[in-house]
Amino acid sequence: MPTVVTLGEAMVVFTSEEYIPLEYATSFKKGLGGAEANFAVGVRRLGVDVGWISRIGKDPFGNFIIKNLKSEGVDVSGVKIDEDHPTGIYFKEKRNSIIANVYYYRKGSAASFMVPEDLDEGYIASAKILHITGITPALSDTCRATVYKAIEIAKSHNITISFDPNIRLKLWKDNEYKRVLLDIAQYADIVLPGLEEGKMLFGITEPESIAKKFLDMGAKIVALKLGNKGAMLVTQEQTIYQLSSKVKEVDPVGAGDGFDAGFIVGLLRGWELKECLRLANDVGAIVVSTKGDMEGLPTMEEVEIFRGNMVHIER
Amino acid sequence: MPTVVTLGEAMVVFTSEEYIPLEYATSFKKGLGGAEANFAVGVRRLGVDVGWISRIGKDPFGNFIIKNLKSEGVDVSGVKIDEDHPTGIYFKEKRNSIIANVYYYRKGSAASFMVPEDLDEGYIASAKILHITGITPALSDTCRATVYKAIEIAKSHNITISFDPNIRLKLWKDNEYKRVLLDIAQYADIVLPGLEEGKMLFGITEPESIAKKFLDMGAKIVALKLGNKGAMLVTQEQTIYQLSSKVKEVDPVGAGDGFDAGFIVGLLRGWELKECLRLANDVGAIVVSTKGDMEGLPTMEEVEIFRGNMVHIER
Amino acid sequence: MPTVVTLGEAMVVFTSEEYIPLEYATSFKKGLGGAEANFAVGVRRLGVDVGWISRIGKDPFGNFIIKNLKSEGVDVSGVKIDEDHPTGIYFKEKRNSIIANVYYYRKGSAASFMVPEDLDEGYIASAKILHITGITPALSDTCRATVYKAIEIAKSHNITISFDPNIRLKLWKDNEYKRVLLDIAQYADIVLPGLEEGKMLFGITEPESIAKKFLDMGAKIVALKLGNKGAMLVTQEQTIYQLSSKVKEVDPVGAGDGFDAGFIVGLLRGWELKECLRLANDVGAIVVSTKGDMEGLPTMEEVEIFRGNMVHIER
Amino acid sequence: MPTVVTLGEAMVVFTSEEYIPLEYATSFKKGLGGAEANFAVGVRRLGVDVGWISRIGKDPFGNFIIKNLKSEGVDVSGVKIDEDHPTGIYFKEKRNSIIANVYYYRKGSAASFMVPEDLDEGYIASAKILHITGITPALSDTCRATVYKAIEIAKSHNITISFDPNIRLKLWKDNEYKRVLLDIAQYADIVLPGLEEGKMLFGITEPESIAKKFLDMGAKIVALKLGNKGAMLVTQEQTIYQLSSKVKEVDPVGAGDGFDAGFIVGLLRGWELKECLRLANDVGAIVVSTKGDMEGLPTMEEVEIFRGNMVHIER
Amino acid sequence: MPTVVTLGEAMVVFTSEEYIPLEYATSFKKGLGGAEANFAVGVRRLGVDVGWISRIGKDPFGNFIIKNLKSEGVDVSGVKIDEDHPTGIYFKEKRNSIIANVYYYRKGSAASFMVPEDLDEGYIASAKILHITGITPALSDTCRATVYKAIEIAKSHNITISFDPNIRLKLWKDNEYKRVLLDIAQYADIVLPGLEEGKMLFGITEPESIAKKFLDMGAKIVALKLGNKGAMLVTQEQTIYQLSSKVKEVDPVGAGDGFDAGFIVGLLRGWELKECLRLANDVGAIVVSTKGDMEGLPTMEEVEIFRGNMVHIER
Amino acid sequence: MPTVVTLGEAMVVFTSEEYIPLEYATSFKKGLGGAEANFAVGVRRLGVDVGWISRIGKDPFGNFIIKNLKSEGVDVSGVKIDEDHPTGIYFKEKRNSIIANVYYYRKGSAASFMVPEDLDEGYIASAKILHITGITPALSDTCRATVYKAIEIAKSHNITISFDPNIRLKLWKDNEYKRVLLDIAQYADIVLPGLEEGKMLFGITEPESIAKKFLDMGAKIVALKLGNKGAMLVTQEQTIYQLSSKVKEVDPVGAGDGFDAGFIVGLLRGWELKECLRLANDVGAIVVSTKGDMEGLPTMEEVEIFRGNMVHIER
Repeated sequence: MPTVVTLGEAMVVFTSEEYIPLEYATSFKKGLGGAEANFAVGVRRLGVDVGWISRIGKDPFGNFIIKNLKSEGVDVSGVKIDEDHPTGIYFKEKRNSIIANVYYYRKGSAASFMVPEDLDEGYIASAKILHITGITPALSDTCRATVYKAIEIAKSHNITISFDPNIRLKLWKDNEYKRVLLDIAQYADIVLPGLEEGKMLFGITEPESIAKKFLDMGAKIVALKLGNKGAMLVTQEQTIYQLSSKVKEVDPVGAGDGFDAGFIVGLLRGWELKECLRLANDVGAIVVSTKGDMEGLPTMEEVEIFRGNMVHIER
Repeated sequence: MPTVVTLGEAMVVFTSEEYIPLEYATSFKKGLGGAEANFAVGVRRLGVDVGWISRIGKDPFGNFIIKNLKSEGVDVSGVKIDEDHPTGIYFKEKRNSIIANVYYYRKGSAASFMVPEDLDEGYIASAKILHITGITPALSDTCRATVYKAIEIAKSHNITISFDPNIRLKLWKDNEYKRVLLDIAQYADIVLPGLEEGKMLFGITEPESIAKKFLDMGAKIVALKLGNKGAMLVTQEQTIYQLSSKVKEVDPVGAGDGFDAGFIVGLLRGWELKECLRLANDVGAIVVSTKGDMEGLPTMEEVEIFRGNMVHIER
Repeated sequence: MPTVVTLGEAMVVFTSEEYIPLEYATSFKKGLGGAEANFAVGVRRLGVDVGWISRIGKDPFGNFIIKNLKSEGVDVSGVKIDEDHPTGIYFKEKRNSIIANVYYYRKGSAASFMVPEDLDEGYIASAKILHITGITPALSDTCRATVYKAIEIAKSHNITISFDPNIRLKLWKDNEYKRVLLDIAQYADIVLPGLEEGKMLFGITEPESIAKKFLDMGAKIVALKLGNKGAMLVTQEQTIYQLSSKVKEVDPVGAGDGFDAGFIVGLLRGWELKECLRLANDVGAIVVSTKGDMEGLPTMEEVEIFRGNMVHIER
Repeated sequence: MPTVVTLGEAMVVFTSEEYIPLEYATSFKKGLGGAEANFAVGVRRLGVDVGWISRIGKDPFGNFIIKNLKSEGVDVSGVKIDEDHPTGIYFKEKRNSIIANVYYYRKGSAASFMVPEDLDEGYIASAKILHITGITPALSDTCRATVYKAIEIAKSHNITISFDPNIRLKLWKDNEYKRVLLDIAQYADIVLPGLEEGKMLFGITEPESIAKKFLDMGAKIVALKLGNKGAMLVTQEQTIYQLSSKVKEVDPVGAGDGFDAGFIVGLLRGWELKECLRLANDVGAIVVSTKGDMEGLPTMEEVEIFRGNMVHIER
Repeated sequence: MPTVVTLGEAMVVFTSEEYIPLEYATSFKKGLGGAEANFAVGVRRLGVDVGWISRIGKDPFGNFIIKNLKSEGVDVSGVKIDEDHPTGIYFKEKRNSIIANVYYYRKGSAASFMVPEDLDEGYIASAKILHITGITPALSDTCRATVYKAIEIAKSHNITISFDPNIRLKLWKDNEYKRVLLDIAQYADIVLPGLEEGKMLFGITEPESIAKKFLDMGAKIVALKLGNKGAMLVTQEQTIYQLSSKVKEVDPVGAGDGFDAGFIVGLLRGWELKECLRLANDVGAIVVSTKGDMEGLPTMEEVEIFRGNMVHIER
Repeated sequence: MPTVVTLGEAMVVFTSEEYIPLEYATSFKKGLGGAEANFAVGVRRLGVDVGWISRIGKDPFGNFIIKNLKSEGVDVSGVKIDEDHPTGIYFKEKRNSIIANVYYYRKGSAASFMVPEDLDEGYIASAKILHITGITPALSDTCRATVYKAIEIAKSHNITISFDPNIRLKLWKDNEYKRVLLDIAQYADIVLPGLEEGKMLFGITEPESIAKKFLDMGAKIVALKLGNKGAMLVTQEQTIYQLSSKVKEVDPVGAGDGFDAGFIVGLLRGWELKECLRLANDVGAIVVSTKGDMEGLPTMEEVEIFRGNMVHIER
């Protein structure tokens, strides 16, 4: 039984690799996307057992997702195959260095049909961390119910809950996300938001004040991502600020998920909070400097090489 | 106002260009698919004005479709942009030379929201041919109603109706297609089925008998496609059989649409039926021997070159 | 009849996408190049009717050009097909970040055979703007005569003339360009030069002084492009300086044409000069940050999104 | 513990996808090769548990191999990571339709350092089939000793041994292969040779006589592969000949491994020999008609679709 | 000084690798084309010294050509660099398996400015064979004069002249080719035409009669290429017919040049005519079965492997 | 006989062109690598005759190397073809902007079997410069002996020896490199180290002190590469510091070899040391700003264009 459990949708993502409007792009690369799946791979590469709960379609894209996660050692025994609905997909468009878009084909996807009955209480109960994001409750009513059911199970077994708001405006009607995500946040022990998300949820812009809001709602630890400025950790007792390592940004997607994975793994290893934050930051930086959502997620050994990059590099 | 009018869904199609299961394919080419759009381009390249009626999403894929059809000179003034629903897409998989599949993401697409009110009576009324396929009525109830409305307009203005059954089993529940397509066939003056479709609709396998069935239902001309064996034309008065030119098959998709386009253009030019069938056959053969659904559709000049291919070819 | 009319050569451009000498490049992408065609697409995307006058060869490259411009909605009724001469092409070489070259195969191209008789007086007469560049008069004697003829028509019908010097040294013998371009500049109401071009024409380097030179020759408005430093607008009454938006430069080609398009569209909308300059600048910046000469040209809606890029971007 | 166990080297294979001498090829695709790994994936896809024993290097190519096999569900608990030696690789060259070559970089590879001590007796003892090929004993003395050790374990636990000679002349000195492979063949219950291999080992060309030779040496079943002519099964009691399904050959590599996998799975299901041979043949045909060594290996469901390919295929 | 000397134009050729009209192709591969350059490489690979005389532009494409020929060991000391004119290029279009086209950009190319003064009498005089084709005299008046000058030098030094008519209709006005090529043929000792060319020159279709025509004009040996049917050699004394080896046709371009090279090398080695014809045929077959104009030209060792292809091929 | 002679291993290098771990890369480009081969091409492009001594395998990769060097005009008469050992290859991995790796398959390569007997005394004796690097002595004992033999020949004929330490830790056991390279350095007249290498050899970090160490060991000139900070030249008489031109770094590999080539060519031309250093710097900068190890090496003409890059560049 895995030490960390998460649930959510994984999708196949199609990317054109140039700064060009999607209508003019002629060829696309297939990849794997999905915040919770990224997180799971991140945790596994850092050496901790992890399980990912979801639904996928009985189609080549579902096979692609499940085989990729298996190859990384993520436990997929909690994944159901939905014969009636397709695996979700999406397209990434980079019009230019300012304008970027995603186009989802995930409405009615297999994952959006997750139901509370998909959850195996024992599976969650034997974990130490349940990690949830703000994406899953936006997918459908049954997905939202599934998230609440997972929270309920975790609470009843004293499993620590970590929560990344991961606001995707395209998935929400109007401002509904505020109500739902703030409600979920109440149950979280660890909250891992981005600064921008803090602003959207509370309408305030000062990092520490945002973190305090979450603490007031019950969180014990808030690790706030500040992009290429680093990260800030706030508890009732202390505030720690950590600069980010300087890397060439190649592909920012997946950095937040890597951050979450690094932080949770640090905690599970019993490290000091400052060290957890440093690992989170470094994993995020490595992901940002590598192509692909998932390919850049490092092993512990690679984190060490990254940190010691002053040693001679042969090319 | 165009001489030929057709209506249906166009989609963006993503293809991996090797015989490889979709789950292992890594890169995909973007193209334009859709039987009626293919037909429209085919008619236009052969020199006849044509209009295509549809709905597309307000997204890059919709732009791609509309710009492509514009570039070919197809009249798109009857196309509505649907702000609320995406343009349909699909994936083609060639597992090997025996097994091929398509994976649609067209449920709830913009085109599936076509309604009878989208039709402009004067637009259809001023044409000489209305071309419909068996795909559109399978897309949604409103699409089916739209097809019937178009038939009603055509009938009330004495516009000739041509009909290609184009059976797509993935779009139909069970055997519902039989009832619907046979009902529509009653209104058609010209029917352009494949041999396989004849078998599916009537449960009989002999080409001439299949054609007779359509004649009994009211058709004046039946042009039956026999794949690489050529085609057979049947009216109350005569049966004409025409062999196919021998070409290397590169990509069979779109050949039937090209056949339809060639046949209709021949008729509109007042050619003898035998010559119409020959043009239909040759257009189909050229499409089959070229990559892409639409790229291979020939101009009249290219048909002539094709026919005279015994002249010296410089390489 | 279009509101804006321009004339010039469009070519197919082949690019190797790496910093590598052309002799070592192994694969090339096909695109569409040509300052006036870029300008026309830019104007059209911003919502104003535009016609492009030219000659293309009766060959696949001519088809490619004409279909692309049609797909964008540019009026091509003034384009002649030349059966005897090929469509011009060229190759772009980026040796490295310092040395770049172009290799033209346009001598004797279809467009170089444009003649004054190709022009339809009524077509130009019904426009509001005639846009010419310094490239066309360099192509051949007949092209130069055609440009003068267009100017003559415009003048006799009180059509505003805008002029972008667009100096291409490879097309000119020695310093002949000075004489010709300064002669043409006399007829222009609006001049849209680059700073470098000002230096080449007048031998002076101070932006405002360069602009004054053009005003002295009869121009009413001079909008001087200063690259990533922005742009300066000078009239007899005022001088306006506008900084450029900060973008990641992806492909600088076409930025000047986009600038011209933005400026002219602003004027046609009756905007204040400062707003015209801002639109020109923003269109240029968007083009610079996108791959391809033409693909990045924005719609008005995309300009708005670009300007409001501080809103949350989902990736 | 897996039902089938095999051991051997897997390599990363680099292929240029055109008929072009390797020295002129400019780009290469990475894939996974190795007869026993192919066999293992084939068995797994057909629904039977399988374990693959080997050594891989501690390098990206080793990771690639192990992750791929994991993703397919092959048990890799018997794989050792060798920190001192690299994972083997090779290049495939198709000069033209007549001349093909491979270029190995596998001398001193991790797998060539397999030793008898790598084997876990219990792991093999709990299987029903041990599958070995003639490649492994050619890799090194320790590899040969490891094969003999595996045979010894199998024999002492009454595990059925299947053997595919898989002669690779590049790996053998002169005619040494004859002595070694004929010695190993004595221990095999099932022998799965190609016709060509029969000729090389015994110097005779008649299929049934070749099979008899193996039966005389102690084999109970010989299934002889006859390429696109099908296969022949010979036991003391009967001779069965089975034609091959007609497919378009896309990539012949891996077909023999697929044949072996199909045959063994049929046996394990308790099927009649004729049915085992049919499955072997069909798996081989599907692999031959698909790109890649491993990608084409079918599931049972795909075999059924392949067999029923007369049903309507939507494209 | 090389044993064989030839003269002609080499060009850079751009190919789209699919059966698709050129206007829709998006990416192109760069290669090297030109009958005499192919011939020269063919001769060199078979082990005989050869020199190629031409002009190239001072541009990357000229560099590409000269470096490629140098790398193959062709003597290029007789090549002039023309600073004023570009290297010729062309595009190959394969619309489908029936229609193929080339689009030349070679008018005014560097090579078309070859003049008799470019020839070094001693260079030709010290060779044993001068090989000319019917392409060079079609390029320009000065090229034609250069060919006649080369013939004159060869004749005055008793150098054997071999001649391949290589009719390229696109380069000739009307039927002018007949007059010119038949005039040149009078000077040839060895003529190496295709059957189709024989028909075009003499209006007769029977192979042996065509050959006789050339013999009547003074040739000593005529080796007539019959495509995939093989070749026929005719002298005053004998007629030899040789079947072609059966290969999968991958790219027919360059096969005739390879045939010429094989035949000439056989003669220079003093082989019997039958053996010369066999080598010519086999070289042609190998080229046809390999991608690229030049890449497939074999060494003598590869010819041997090709002939002995019955030996075991490892894949 | 060439003016400059060098010896070492050239390899085929396979690169994935993205920041992605090698295990996830799917396609690779083939190139040519090897410090001494780079150096030789650099010298040749700058206009000085150069010979490269080595061994290559009798395989397509050996052909590729030898043909490439021939095409550049490098004298390869001193290269032996080793029928028993393969040409070395390697893979470059760019995990991200911080972590880069190489994976060699060069153990037991043809070049590692170089022996002193491969050297032709007259060939070296007639040169003015012998250039050696610290890579060759690391390849094998016989390679090391060959380097010493070359030094001995050079010394006995008063040939100037230039030496680039080129430390490749992967090729050395522990700190063995210090002993060997410092021993070789004693024989060098010109030493061309990187700053980092100076630190590794002497354990000191101050550029001038590092240079002095080499002078103390007998060098007459030390040109120390300081990366993008430029270079420093130190002799007994003077110290010259030269800033680097500012370029966009595209591919740093080969820059050091280009630096060496520029410096040596300057010396051979009898230039002042400051000018030699400037050429070395500029060649290095041009290489760094171009893709590929070798493709960016400039001709003297290109160096001039680079230096005068303020002139108008047409794009």
